[in-house]
Amino acid sequence: MRRLALAVALVAFAVALVAPTANAKVRHYWIAAVPATWDIMPTGRDPITGQTFTKDQTVMQTVVYRRYTKNWAQHWPNYPTKMGDNDGIPGPLIKARVGDTIKVHFRNRDTLRNHPHSMHFHGVSYKFPSDGAWIPGVSGPGSRVMPGRSFTYVLEAKKSARGAWPYHDHSEMMHESLDGGLYGSMSILSRVEREPDRENVVFFSSHRGFMTINGRAFPRNTPTPKAKIGNIVQWNVLALGSDHHTFHLHGHRWRFAGQWVDVRTIGPAESFRFRIREDVEGTWFYHCHVEAHMAAGMQGFYEVRGRARRAL
Amino acid sequence: MRRLALAVALVAFAVALVAPTANAKVRHYWIAAVPATWDIMPTGRDPITGQTFTKDQTVMQTVVYRRYTKNWAQHWPNYPTKMGDNDGIPGPLIKARVGDTIKVHFRNRDTLRNHPHSMHFHGVSYKFPSDGAWIPGVSGPGSRVMPGRSFTYVLEAKKSARGAWPYHDHSEMMHESLDGGLYGSMSILSRVEREPDRENVVFFSSHRGFMTINGRAFPRNTPTPKAKIGNIVQWNVLALGSDHHTFHLHGHRWRFAGQWVDVRTIGPAESFRFRIREDVEGTWFYHCHVEAHMAAGMQGFYEVRGRARRAL
Amino acid sequence: MRRLALAVALVAFAVALVAPTANAKVRHYWIAAVPATWDIMPTGRDPITGQTFTKDQTVMQTVVYRRYTKNWAQHWPNYPTKMGDNDGIPGPLIKARVGDTIKVHFRNRDTLRNHPHSMHFHGVSYKFPSDGAWIPGVSGPGSRVMPGRSFTYVLEAKKSARGAWPYHDHSEMMHESLDGGLYGSMSILSRVEREPDRENVVFFSSHRGFMTINGRAFPRNTPTPKAKIGNIVQWNVLALGSDHHTFHLHGHRWRFAGQWVDVRTIGPAESFRFRIREDVEGTWFYHCHVEAHMAAGMQGFYEVRGRARRAL
Repeated sequence: MRRLALAVALVAFAVALVAPTANAKVRHYWIAAVPATWDIMPTGRDPITGQTFTKDQTVMQTVVYRRYTKNWAQHWPNYPTKMGDNDGIPGPLIKARVGDTIKVHFRNRDTLRNHPHSMHFHGVSYKFPSDGAWIPGVSGPGSRVMPGRSFTYVLEAKKSARGAWPYHDHSEMMHESLDGGLYGSMSILSRVEREPDRENVVFFSSHRGFMTINGRAFPRNTPTPKAKIGNIVQWNVLALGSDHHTFHLHGHRWRFAGQWVDVRTIGPAESFRFRIREDVEGTWFYHCHVEAHMAAGMQGFYEVRGRARRAL
Repeated sequence: MRRLALAVALVAFAVALVAPTANAKVRHYWIAAVPATWDIMPTGRDPITGQTFTKDQTVMQTVVYRRYTKNWAQHWPNYPTKMGDNDGIPGPLIKARVGDTIKVHFRNRDTLRNHPHSMHFHGVSYKFPSDGAWIPGVSGPGSRVMPGRSFTYVLEAKKSARGAWPYHDHSEMMHESLDGGLYGSMSILSRVEREPDRENVVFFSSHRGFMTINGRAFPRNTPTPKAKIGNIVQWNVLALGSDHHTFHLHGHRWRFAGQWVDVRTIGPAESFRFRIREDVEGTWFYHCHVEAHMAAGMQGFYEVRGRARRAL
Repeated sequence: MRRLALAVALVAFAVALVAPTANAKVRHYWIAAVPATWDIMPTGRDPITGQTFTKDQTVMQTVVYRRYTKNWAQHWPNYPTKMGDNDGIPGPLIKARVGDTIKVHFRNRDTLRNHPHSMHFHGVSYKFPSDGAWIPGVSGPGSRVMPGRSFTYVLEAKKSARGAWPYHDHSEMMHESLDGGLYGSMSILSRVEREPDRENVVFFSSHRGFMTINGRAFPRNTPTPKAKIGNIVQWNVLALGSDHHTFHLHGHRWRFAGQWVDVRTIGPAESFRFRIREDVEGTWFYHCHVEAHMAAGMQGFYEVRGRARRAL
């Protein structure tokens, strides 16, 4: 009996060692830059102060990244209750595991301004043609994809790619594009990490004078992620723009640089992730703790109710 | 003889293991929000440039946290030579050890503006009613304590609470309150850490256009902590407001994230602490290294003279 | 035979242990503050957007640190293809190893404004007279070196000095001086670290409304460091001024605080270094990722071509 158990353990161990290589995948994403009407405040209201805003103030015509099915056959469905889905700002969440190759097929469908666009990815490894950053006379077609044209970026998720990362336009239109929301995020797990029960993307930026989370301002406009006691909840926190922020989640703490924290500075293009095992019910603020940013909309709620059926 | 020594060692070890639990305490703090006349520059003068300021520029009527004895019987004494005492800005230093329960009895005595106030604590663990953050229709009485009313926040110092942490008003008056100085700090040691010989609280914020440390601007207005060679000196560095800072202490270095540093970025609601074993005499600047902040008052002196009688 | 090998190993080990002390040096640097005509954009052109600037906008009369041979006999040569050389902004790169004593002989040759100047060094250890920070009535002659006068700063590179560090004027003229470029950097290796094949100094600051790297704005004005596949390339990143930045290097990642990053926040007087083993050809952007800073010039190129003859 003991021999059998030992043999099983050895086999399981061997499989675990081999599995990573065996499972490495090529993952295809079909993403286009498309025109969109974007409302920074669908409710038109800050629920904390009661202040209201008009659609003149909150709605913009812009260009965002959207995910499509293979060969851009059709628009990938939105999941409005999830964060980092396919709603527009941020663009589609690109997921992979260390060891994977990611091929991002990009098409520029900017019929709003007819400007060139590109994609530049943080965290992953690639050859120079997939850098996506415009340098006149030096960079290739991937740095300046003209309206109606396509380009495929080839990205390797090496060990150093583990984490949450931003991607964004880095063409000559980079600044206009970032103001308009042409950015998104990636989430790359190691080969052996468990998928979290919940994965929340919090992308700090600013649009039309509002300080935004995922392109929206003030709670109930910004995402309201949910969880149950016992859930493993992963937070991916990212930023782009011209401002430094401090991410704060009420009632929870996590490790950073050998210390426990519940606030962490994040500047443009920085990103970090952390996991909590949920242990306390409540309607918890998550927000940027820079006062002026908070007052300009950079706040949301995180709702924890009930107990997960199968807690770890 | 050897047996005896061994037995003693074992007993000592057992006691050490048991002691943490045995010593865990409930610590009570009685803190009120009270009106105060606060002078940002008691000396009226920047000793570096010789520039002077009038009381019109430096004195404000405001509301601060003050510590009281049990049941608010009387005002807790000030120790004007200490940092983070009961002077007003920052509010009283709340001290505890991991394992402790902290009960903060808060009373709103704001007779200046008659506004609601609250306390929101970083670092510690608590149930939702002790969060202290105002959400209309959701949060309870602890998030909006009306003038004349009281509320008791119940906080657990778990292992993740070790460190220095800010607390502050998070009621609907949060922004007005922070501008006025309604914030303070906590210092939580592990169960076995030695108390430092000196503990210096450096709280960065801004008031009336001055960039302040503990509510004051320019050296000899900001605190002038003292130490002797051989002292263990702990620095608790905190920030609130809308600005990112870089804390710098002249002539000394400490560890952060596996590297030695003598400057560290700190944004609103972030905090960190470090210890030095004092080894060099001098009148050392400590300041924010953001030039514009330094020029607006965010500087102080730290005086090291003589040798501690019993150095570690 | 085995005995011989063992003996050799033991001797090698003993030598390694003793060597650090044996090799510790006193390193002398002769540095003066001298007038200079500094052009923030020698090409007058941003190669990304094609925008041009006039010399009225980009040239300033200022005071910089320059290195001299012993006793200021003659101006130390410039190496215009190297970063952190003796070009002016930043000042000369001071190099040492842990255990060394560094004597910086400073002379104030400011004939432009005839102002006092000083040098204040981060990272290293020193007695109070070598602090270089002006406190009226307290600090000594090293904090306020008058035009025509000299002062020698005595600095110890203790274990905590390992890294890249800024130095700068901390006299009463500090703010004017920093605006004008009176700052430089140090690079201190441990006793056993290998010299990198390439060492790139990236010093973020701002001058005349431009956001600068090493005193220059926009690629081909800022340094264009070069490397080959297989090279060990060290990046020293530093900042001074009133702004927080986020350093980003395209196509490469490094470790920070237990995570892989390709962007890192750096505030005034902060500094960090990292090494990469070069593995990918390209013309890679390095830049501050704060959008407004990037648009104001804080960008450069890093060129990787070919293979090192003798890769590690």
